[in-house]
Amino acid sequence: MTDLGPAKSTSQSDFNHAAVIGGGVIGASWAALFLANGMSVCISDPADHIERYVREVLERALPDLKALGLNVNGAQARLTFDKDTSRAVANVDVVQENGPENPDFKQKLWSLIEKAAGPKTLLFSSSSGIVPGVQAQAMKDPKRLIIGHPFNPPHIMPLVEILSHENADDALVERALSFYRGLGKVPVRLHKAVPGFVGNRLQAALFQESVYLVKEGVVTVEELDEVVTASIGIRWATAGPFLSFHLGGGPGGLKHFIETLGKSLDAMWPHLGKATFDGATKEVLLSQADASFAKQPIPDLEQKSQREQLAVMEALNSLQSAAAR
Amino acid sequence: MTDLGPAKSTSQSDFNHAAVIGGGVIGASWAALFLANGMSVCISDPADHIERYVREVLERALPDLKALGLNVNGAQARLTFDKDTSRAVANVDVVQENGPENPDFKQKLWSLIEKAAGPKTLLFSSSSGIVPGVQAQAMKDPKRLIIGHPFNPPHIMPLVEILSHENADDALVERALSFYRGLGKVPVRLHKAVPGFVGNRLQAALFQESVYLVKEGVVTVEELDEVVTASIGIRWATAGPFLSFHLGGGPGGLKHFIETLGKSLDAMWPHLGKATFDGATKEVLLSQADASFAKQPIPDLEQKSQREQLAVMEALNSLQSAAAR
Repeated sequence: MTDLGPAKSTSQSDFNHAAVIGGGVIGASWAALFLANGMSVCISDPADHIERYVREVLERALPDLKALGLNVNGAQARLTFDKDTSRAVANVDVVQENGPENPDFKQKLWSLIEKAAGPKTLLFSSSSGIVPGVQAQAMKDPKRLIIGHPFNPPHIMPLVEILSHENADDALVERALSFYRGLGKVPVRLHKAVPGFVGNRLQAALFQESVYLVKEGVVTVEELDEVVTASIGIRWATAGPFLSFHLGGGPGGLKHFIETLGKSLDAMWPHLGKATFDGATKEVLLSQADASFAKQPIPDLEQKSQREQLAVMEALNSLQSAAAR
Repeated sequence: MTDLGPAKSTSQSDFNHAAVIGGGVIGASWAALFLANGMSVCISDPADHIERYVREVLERALPDLKALGLNVNGAQARLTFDKDTSRAVANVDVVQENGPENPDFKQKLWSLIEKAAGPKTLLFSSSSGIVPGVQAQAMKDPKRLIIGHPFNPPHIMPLVEILSHENADDALVERALSFYRGLGKVPVRLHKAVPGFVGNRLQAALFQESVYLVKEGVVTVEELDEVVTASIGIRWATAGPFLSFHLGGGPGGLKHFIETLGKSLDAMWPHLGKATFDGATKEVLLSQADASFAKQPIPDLEQKSQREQLAVMEALNSLQSAAAR
């Protein structure tokens, strides 16, 4: 392989062949993304009918990726299947693992993959919680394993949380980051491990308060969702919480914001809601969710939601391109 | 006034004249929204130079409202100023109050407004926390006071949190809701009062975890913002947390999501971060914020952010219009 430097498209980059271990919801979505970036993909999954499932996912996902400006010609033809994991990973540049969230399973799997894959192959786990030090325990060179945790669906959501082994080789992590950047993703390297990583913790914090407010009868499930999509959702799609409060502070920025509103937050934080999925809470949430969401089939709602996510991303991208001109 | 039924634009509706009490950041933004919907606006504010400030805000806001499809012709000509509050509210259909967040001040103000305004005038407070029962204590008919709490900036953000007096007249609240809907807003009526209402509590919950993760060194201020804008921001601009997890549950919906992931959330919630704005925390946040945000002047960042918010809203609106055709 020749080093062509930072490439715009992975089709002319170091990364041409991928193995995707596990072809479920996450694996199939990764496969769609890799294929739409010109890579070949081999999926290794023991399940019967896996090929039919993945090819159906691709039929829905590829038009969306085309809308994002990617070239999806010949994508299905570049997809193969091999239940033998060693064979699937033997000649690839990248492995993206999406197996069960089970430490034993992952330890055995990575030991096998390490033996079968080439020495320069990037080894990624999509795990949302099992840190590299645990997953890689049976590997000869555990530093090679890097977590590349996507947000669902990986073929649309830009974020990939990167967590490396604590003794990681920085040059290797840099290569990992440039692989994901080449796919148009936004990889963010975490400087240390915390349970749930970052995105899921933030989501859990907001969701706990959401469950509390519905349980308390302040708003319904549908009204709470309306509050979010009509305010903080729009805000956070364009600016994260720190930049938002930097702007909320007026000419004095975040410093002024903390000086004037920090005390209110300090006072409010200990009193935010606690929640737990006990019977009564589940009953309230699920009866309200039924009343609101059951009107439309889940696949239709999902497609609508993904189209909207793409529309948001395209709108922001074209604004940025216009600003760069 | 003739009842023309639900009108598409307030210019042909019951609501033609507004008084805005307090012409600061929030009041000026409300004025922009009312004017761009064909209303006349009288601003009452004791500050010197208030007219210059508000007219400058309008110069920046009106082009954005035009981009949203509103007719801003003659907007500045429909704007007047009167430091005498009684005179300002005497002949209007709507009062939107944005005074200091001080219960005594508001009690005296509402008593005065009640005497001076017509019996059918809608009386709204933008307060983010002083409930109607407290603000309206000195009024003869305290039920008339309704909180219409906007999200900053009110001329862009769709959400208006509606909180009525506990003995409110439902027909009056319905009229309040249709006023805001006529302006293209998304009013959400809270069924009971909680400190911080809904949007700010949700924001506070996510922000506490954000401050914790930065303080712990997991990510920087800039990286945390990147995580949000590249994942949950896009998600929540299009679907609130409940619909998002309904879709995250696959064919089994929210029920399946809670059955499979509820235990992880129950386990994670008590361990989410606690934060407080002590000296060390402020030092970390502000030095990182400086390094990231100080490159660009705040007004430029603010304009960029508002343009992006508008682009997100327009993209979602045009998708909805296309689906409705």
